[in-house]
Amino acid sequence: MANVDEAILKRVKGWAPYVDAKLGFRNHWYPVMFSKEIDEGEPKTLKLLGENLLVNRIDGKLYCLKDRCLHRGVQLSVKVECKTKSTITCWYHAWTYRWEDGVLCDILTNPTSAQIGRQKLKTYPVQEAKGCVFIYLGDGDPPPLARDTPPNFLDDDMEILGKNQIIKSNWRLAVENGFDPSHIYIHKDSILVKDNDLALPLGFAPGGDRKQQTRVVDDDVVGRKGVYDLIGEHGVPVFEGTIGGEVVREGAYGEKIVANDISIWLPGVLKVNPFPNPDMMQFEWYVPIDENTHYYFQTLGKPCANDEERKNYEQEFESKWKPMALEGFNNDDIWAREAMVDFYADDKGWVNEILFEVDEAIVAWRKLASEHNQGIQTQAHVSG
Amino acid sequence: MANVDEAILKRVKGWAPYVDAKLGFRNHWYPVMFSKEIDEGEPKTLKLLGENLLVNRIDGKLYCLKDRCLHRGVQLSVKVECKTKSTITCWYHAWTYRWEDGVLCDILTNPTSAQIGRQKLKTYPVQEAKGCVFIYLGDGDPPPLARDTPPNFLDDDMEILGKNQIIKSNWRLAVENGFDPSHIYIHKDSILVKDNDLALPLGFAPGGDRKQQTRVVDDDVVGRKGVYDLIGEHGVPVFEGTIGGEVVREGAYGEKIVANDISIWLPGVLKVNPFPNPDMMQFEWYVPIDENTHYYFQTLGKPCANDEERKNYEQEFESKWKPMALEGFNNDDIWAREAMVDFYADDKGWVNEILFEVDEAIVAWRKLASEHNQGIQTQAHVSG
Amino acid sequence: MANVDEAILKRVKGWAPYVDAKLGFRNHWYPVMFSKEIDEGEPKTLKLLGENLLVNRIDGKLYCLKDRCLHRGVQLSVKVECKTKSTITCWYHAWTYRWEDGVLCDILTNPTSAQIGRQKLKTYPVQEAKGCVFIYLGDGDPPPLARDTPPNFLDDDMEILGKNQIIKSNWRLAVENGFDPSHIYIHKDSILVKDNDLALPLGFAPGGDRKQQTRVVDDDVVGRKGVYDLIGEHGVPVFEGTIGGEVVREGAYGEKIVANDISIWLPGVLKVNPFPNPDMMQFEWYVPIDENTHYYFQTLGKPCANDEERKNYEQEFESKWKPMALEGFNNDDIWAREAMVDFYADDKGWVNEILFEVDEAIVAWRKLASEHNQGIQTQAHVSG
Ligand code: FES
Ligand code: FES
Ligand code: FES
Repeated sequence: MANVDEAILKRVKGWAPYVDAKLGFRNHWYPVMFSKEIDEGEPKTLKLLGENLLVNRIDGKLYCLKDRCLHRGVQLSVKVECKTKSTITCWYHAWTYRWEDGVLCDILTNPTSAQIGRQKLKTYPVQEAKGCVFIYLGDGDPPPLARDTPPNFLDDDMEILGKNQIIKSNWRLAVENGFDPSHIYIHKDSILVKDNDLALPLGFAPGGDRKQQTRVVDDDVVGRKGVYDLIGEHGVPVFEGTIGGEVVREGAYGEKIVANDISIWLPGVLKVNPFPNPDMMQFEWYVPIDENTHYYFQTLGKPCANDEERKNYEQEFESKWKPMALEGFNNDDIWAREAMVDFYADDKGWVNEILFEVDEAIVAWRKLASEHNQGIQTQAHVSG
Repeated sequence: MANVDEAILKRVKGWAPYVDAKLGFRNHWYPVMFSKEIDEGEPKTLKLLGENLLVNRIDGKLYCLKDRCLHRGVQLSVKVECKTKSTITCWYHAWTYRWEDGVLCDILTNPTSAQIGRQKLKTYPVQEAKGCVFIYLGDGDPPPLARDTPPNFLDDDMEILGKNQIIKSNWRLAVENGFDPSHIYIHKDSILVKDNDLALPLGFAPGGDRKQQTRVVDDDVVGRKGVYDLIGEHGVPVFEGTIGGEVVREGAYGEKIVANDISIWLPGVLKVNPFPNPDMMQFEWYVPIDENTHYYFQTLGKPCANDEERKNYEQEFESKWKPMALEGFNNDDIWAREAMVDFYADDKGWVNEILFEVDEAIVAWRKLASEHNQGIQTQAHVSG
Repeated sequence: MANVDEAILKRVKGWAPYVDAKLGFRNHWYPVMFSKEIDEGEPKTLKLLGENLLVNRIDGKLYCLKDRCLHRGVQLSVKVECKTKSTITCWYHAWTYRWEDGVLCDILTNPTSAQIGRQKLKTYPVQEAKGCVFIYLGDGDPPPLARDTPPNFLDDDMEILGKNQIIKSNWRLAVENGFDPSHIYIHKDSILVKDNDLALPLGFAPGGDRKQQTRVVDDDVVGRKGVYDLIGEHGVPVFEGTIGGEVVREGAYGEKIVANDISIWLPGVLKVNPFPNPDMMQFEWYVPIDENTHYYFQTLGKPCANDEERKNYEQEFESKWKPMALEGFNNDDIWAREAMVDFYADDKGWVNEILFEVDEAIVAWRKLASEHNQGIQTQAHVSG
């Protein structure tokens, strides 16, 4: 069963699987919170690709259970009852599950039930890296985390700090806003551009050869699939916006050159290098919560050689980069995504939109995602 | 036209009519308010099985009209205009209906209209008993009220007091929470259990013979159809909840034995005997308002020999049983019902749920209701 | 694609196109605001027949663009950027459109794009008359405004003043409330009736000949299509409302005779002559915003010979006719329309309603509108 009307899917031949993936791609790793947000023995509830989940930390290690009792379908998180360290007991009829494998190991209200040991609640692998909590929302053995993170994110010396929030738009509108080469127009008056002395054009006139506008990566050794936007390299940055030949708006002619290396990766994570400063990189995920919302999981990375550098970076992050870049700059991206919601709400936007040359990068992403995703999440996964 | 997708109904063969009855069963008596809530000549509006209704008291007797003008469909209750004792006039174009039979007896804006005497607004029989107002939401002659009330409720010496409120769940989730033998687990920390010194196990391990777990009543002399839960009699009460053999929670070892006689009756009313005290009984209805809400109509009955006993019971009810039982104890049932809503919202919960031994009582109710209901309310009844 | 279920359309044979027109009739002029509400170079956003629009005043003249960028479908009004007097630039990727013809004349982010000059945003004709702004929500050349306004509205000496507000009902329920001969019953206790000494019956008993009840105008020289309600002329006004022969309510026996000349015109505008005073007329539009809301665009006209008369009328309008007539009297019409919403919400009301003699006027309007409308707005017009 497709998520989207077949008549629409037929009209977007080049990337129908992507248009169908309103609930996200299954069988990928997604960051959902920061490590410091989850304490020992204090389960947190969240939603990912439409599924309610519970995450717990036991002896330091993280576990993830589907937050829906097998018996009558209630969320365990309505009233958490963990009576032993390694189990959770449903508050309703006391079906008790092991965090490790989801096995129904006991039922307090009926210790002789034949269901004990026979039923199993869905579990998902969890992994921590760079202070972030990743869940593998999929089936079977998970791939290495590296496959679903951009190059450099897991580098040994890379110090990662960030911010996470829920945004009311489909996750794809967020990806496309982030990777969109000409959306920089909305940032033209950003405080970051002025205060950090950035050079920022209004847009790009692409060169003649369409193929040179992007570079697709589908042979990465760790299995990553992504697209590089090469328009900065092969096109002409536009610093003067004209109407009828008259200049009506100029870009920013600052000293610092940033964002000349931009790439998007499955399952939906952007890398901007360097950014927001020449010695930093931005990695940001657009994580599907359900078809109408996503986590905007923003991180900034900076290579640090020792504890002192890390400490300085932390201070700088809080006082400068978080307010100026993650908020001052990226908050414009948030309302831009939300402004697209109505047009794509009935899925007809995918047919009625009119793209232009610079959208070649977005088209390349749609095709890559359609070809290399590991599965399309459906309503049947959610309710099944 | 079924209310529920046919594919789902096919997968719940044993009780498809019940699954289809999200709007309730037609042709049954339902309590909707207490007698003291409706005064002479002051009509009240309410919704029952999806239909808007108006109830009025005239010379002491109650009448019920569909609250929807035949002409342009507005609710008469938007602006009640009763210009004579026995009629109600629509505020819009003054079509005037008799409370007794619903006949369109006059039209003030056009006294010569050919519609006068030819049209008839739907009326429903109303009856008062034990201080409660019952409406027969059905067609044709109603059966005696006794058919749709549990044994003892109408007993001569039975004094009934209660409480009514609107709850946001489908009525069946309320029935199943109430009759569910192992849901008592949610009451383990209730103030009633402690303060009234009740014995309350955590649950029940049923005995070997499935048939002994319930007793179906379908040959009652007044036509009642119901199911008794016999698990207290034929099963083993569980007072020690264990995980991996270790006791992690105990039940309540109070002195007072209650609730050893529990039964559920069409069209959806529970009897718990005795409760909440050895000399009392609880009768509670889960009355369909629409597919998302129900009246939780709770009553407590106590046999009283004379006025003094009745007066004492009234005082005790207000000061003790209402706050401690109807609220302190049953409020836990309310959020438990609401916690099931999401899972059953798209009707797939009826297929995806996984039952266990003790749910035999619920299954028996579903089968009985499927077989013996007097009609399934549909959207066509509501808008037709 | 019909807007309404075919099974329903088949059952209302006489006026199926009207029942299908829940989004309004396309290719007609509609008033949407007053001239004084829109200033030079300050675009206003609004919705009409489901479409988001932007109106701007340039060198005094008004222009109207669809408020949805051709590129990624966002509303231009989210952040208006007019960088030259005659254009508007999308805030997202700087596609720039001419107000006059909607042509995509420049793209600031990519001045070499092949889309420039090739794409065209939908524009709609705008016209001002009598201090009101009219939009022709249609395709091709518009007819003269006179075709879609009632007789006398455009008269040279007619001074028009009014009020506009958004009401939560479908536009047709508003038309039918306004033109409905027997709805005057709801105004029986209006402050206007008492304070302005009006004669107002409770309703009308129509005469014998059905054809004499209305007069259809379909041969007007300017192309107007409308229906006159002749029941005041050929029927009997009812001043005494009776139930069982007994008088239970009387109409108003004031001195001033008003409203003896009532007519309704495509695309949905009522003329009441004279009203609310013997020397005035009321013209009021019910303008479809979307299927659930309409503008209630009320105007009162009074012939004025010179500036002094106009000035006096303006003062009288503010101090007397607006509070007493447009509010004191017509506010009752607003809640009456809203009271019909539920019954017609699923379109079944058009089948289940039961009309009576006096509704002949409404039936004549439905037939006229079905036959003479210039097009039915559909969801495809909105999203296409
Ligand atoms: S719903 Fe969880 S144990 Fe019954
Ligand atoms: S809607 Fe009730 S009389 Fe017309
Ligand atoms: S959405 Fe308007 S220019 Fe892109």
